[in-house]
Amino acid sequence: MDAIVLFGHGARDPEWARPLERLRELVLARHPGLDVRLAFLEFMQPGLADALEAAAAQGASSVRVVPVFLAQGGHVKRDVPEILAAVRQKHPSLKIELTTALGETAAVLAAMAEEVLRPD
Amino acid sequence: MDAIVLFGHGARDPEWARPLERLRELVLARHPGLDVRLAFLEFMQPGLADALEAAAAQGASSVRVVPVFLAQGGHVKRDVPEILAAVRQKHPSLKIELTTALGETAAVLAAMAEEVLRPD
Repeated sequence: MDAIVLFGHGARDPEWARPLERLRELVLARHPGLDVRLAFLEFMQPGLADALEAAAAQGASSVRVVPVFLAQGGHVKRDVPEILAAVRQKHPSLKIELTTALGETAAVLAAMAEEVLRPD
Repeated sequence: MDAIVLFGHGARDPEWARPLERLRELVLARHPGLDVRLAFLEFMQPGLADALEAAAAQGASSVRVVPVFLAQGGHVKRDVPEILAAVRQKHPSLKIELTTALGETAAVLAAMAEEVLRPD
């Protein structure tokens, strides 16, 4: 894996992206020098296709797309495969791995359960 | 705290709520017998006000509302305080604690960063 794209929904409020930026910093702290990019479905830039093309242009041959969503709703189930299919057609040699939505993984769910019960 | 309301956005896809249901199970596994409810902003039922009123009707005098959102966007910043103000007016003795959005907490961000880098 040469690059990671953290793919979020996006929102009108510019502050919405802050946790995604923080997540990018935390990933870079664990893996300095890795090509880690943000991408958004709507309201914010860049879009997923643009981020993937930028990673390919920087020399990435294998990219992991991580949906930073709580759950696999219509956006992740329908919109993302369509976007990836279009990018794959333009860049047939680029390997694109699509992971599970972060909020559905056991480790993140366990951390959320602990947080819910955290004393005041 | 007598009750917890896990408050999510909601979606048209009924499967969207599954991780929230899983989160509720994980919280109950750590704290059996606690009154843990789901509530949604749109598309799904019950709404936040209904869930809080149901908890109060069940005898809760203190409820923690946990936004199961990745980030504090307009929904959490504007919609939730409005809903809570209306509920507080109707139930002045009900203590309502509103926590940070789960996706903005250090523990959840750290778990997400680990997950992003998990080997295939």
